[in-house]
Amino acid sequence: MATIKDVAKEAGVSVATVSRVVNKSPKASKAAIKSVNAAMTKLGYRPNANARALVSKSTNTIGVLVADVSDPFFGSLIKAVDGVARANNKHLLIGNGYHNAEVEKEAIELLIHNRCESLIIHSKGLSDEELIQFSQEVPGLVIINRHIPQIAHKCIYLDNQLGSRLATEHLIESGHQHLAYINSNQQIDDCIDRKHGFAQALEKHGLIINSSLLSEGEPTDEGGENAMNELIKNKQSFTGVVCYNDYMAAGAIAALEKAGISVPEQVSIIGFDNGLIAKYLHPKLTTIDYPISEMASQAALLSLLLAKDEKPETEKKVYTPTLVKRNSVHTL
Amino acid sequence: MATIKDVAKEAGVSVATVSRVVNKSPKASKAAIKSVNAAMTKLGYRPNANARALVSKSTNTIGVLVADVSDPFFGSLIKAVDGVARANNKHLLIGNGYHNAEVEKEAIELLIHNRCESLIIHSKGLSDEELIQFSQEVPGLVIINRHIPQIAHKCIYLDNQLGSRLATEHLIESGHQHLAYINSNQQIDDCIDRKHGFAQALEKHGLIINSSLLSEGEPTDEGGENAMNELIKNKQSFTGVVCYNDYMAAGAIAALEKAGISVPEQVSIIGFDNGLIAKYLHPKLTTIDYPISEMASQAALLSLLLAKDEKPETEKKVYTPTLVKRNSVHTL
Repeated sequence: MATIKDVAKEAGVSVATVSRVVNKSPKASKAAIKSVNAAMTKLGYRPNANARALVSKSTNTIGVLVADVSDPFFGSLIKAVDGVARANNKHLLIGNGYHNAEVEKEAIELLIHNRCESLIIHSKGLSDEELIQFSQEVPGLVIINRHIPQIAHKCIYLDNQLGSRLATEHLIESGHQHLAYINSNQQIDDCIDRKHGFAQALEKHGLIINSSLLSEGEPTDEGGENAMNELIKNKQSFTGVVCYNDYMAAGAIAALEKAGISVPEQVSIIGFDNGLIAKYLHPKLTTIDYPISEMASQAALLSLLLAKDEKPETEKKVYTPTLVKRNSVHTL
Repeated sequence: MATIKDVAKEAGVSVATVSRVVNKSPKASKAAIKSVNAAMTKLGYRPNANARALVSKSTNTIGVLVADVSDPFFGSLIKAVDGVARANNKHLLIGNGYHNAEVEKEAIELLIHNRCESLIIHSKGLSDEELIQFSQEVPGLVIINRHIPQIAHKCIYLDNQLGSRLATEHLIESGHQHLAYINSNQQIDDCIDRKHGFAQALEKHGLIINSSLLSEGEPTDEGGENAMNELIKNKQSFTGVVCYNDYMAAGAIAALEKAGISVPEQVSIIGFDNGLIAKYLHPKLTTIDYPISEMASQAALLSLLLAKDEKPETEKKVYTPTLVKRNSVHTL
């Protein structure tokens, strides 16, 4: 690959002159611009992004941390940030944190080392204090899907409690009185908030929580299947189940099917996320829509503004989930 | 944020000395290392990755181009490359090409500008010539899911023809004689190769291709549904359908269901990819497994070797697809 020295030699100018042309300095003469551009074209020289970044003190890079890029939920998040990045001539650097504090920390530090001035962070492993510290270091850092009161103006998040309440009330309004809840066993706020929403809805309608109708597992198909098998084993009757997410709902449906219990005729199921799989399930899954694309775009725009020390026009930070009715809820 | 100048001042040394310490130059004295490290810790200074890269001429970055990061197929590809990257202390820069030549070109150039020495390129928009030119510029460039004869040693790809042949033969061996094919209407090799595999299998078993049993559409649910509606409209009887991918198979199943035709009792369906949705479909989809994670890991390892001008130990470049039997094929 040709170096900046080769270009200088070919153009008959100094390395400093080539640098000025590459970095579009007003000090570069027209003659220099012409001869340097000709030399760069001839030698196939690509101005080094690192050198440019040193001069401009900006890498034009937006960093994104997600749990796992292979989950389509995070794929949608990244795609939305990429859309904003492209529209603003920025590019993306992506880290996977796998909900693990150490891995998340390492990934965020790598993004900062690479001079990402805008950061969209989806972290469930790190403490509030650690994230606050990172946010003090990087003005353009935005937290997505988490609410940290001390830096609330930099947080874009969903009202998880409301989502679960909507799901539960839909079952109650469809005539269900004996409701089970399948939760994720992760130690994250989302689990607490969603279960709280379930409890709130029951309370509002004068229904009592039956602890043998509460079950939990990994937030996966398998976790949902195991959790449903627990519920079936308890031999407490129920006609409706609110699940932590769509994957757990898929596993719950599989367990019911294996036990010869028909969905939705005997048991109604409702998911959370409205992810890729929801419409492919049988029956098609009634679920709660998580507007992750819209939230991620908003987070990216906010991070660009914060990085420039500007204020956003809108103050929308908390997003509202909505009910998506399909075929997994039966009206009694 | 503290600058290198602040660190030098705090440590009572020159900027050049700080630079030597940061870049682990053997010329740095023990006293300098100690005072600079103490100053960096005190000021919370982060060595600038751009400055390091200029010195080391390497950014430790692997670049990946995919069509669309929100598709779980590409999510799996990226996750596998990330695994190799992490194991080798590298990080990832990701571009989306959306199968569009201009967008792909721009994204690859951005990755090169950012001094990615290893590149994993999934390109369906650019010509062979354009990709060969990029590969000459970047020794560590590997093409995934495409075979370019002139740079075959840098290509990791699937035997698409074999995959489709396996699918078709499975239907024939299950007693099906009247077979339809639903293809993607993209202008890419994969479509030609997969259709060719279908034709080969029919020919091998003395069956004739009926052109009114060939249909095509976008490689999506909707495309598959439309293509199946075309086949139904043609009123030519068929009992088995080979689909270009799992999404088209999902759409085909939906169209059959709406037409009151039962799957697999009346019509058997087979997909391609064994993607996330295959096991959620009803019936669970029999399909062809595309070992994209394994291929992407292999591509990443190959790119790291090529970037160092080393030769790979194994020469495995063409991957073999396999049949995954689930419930969408009925034996006649």
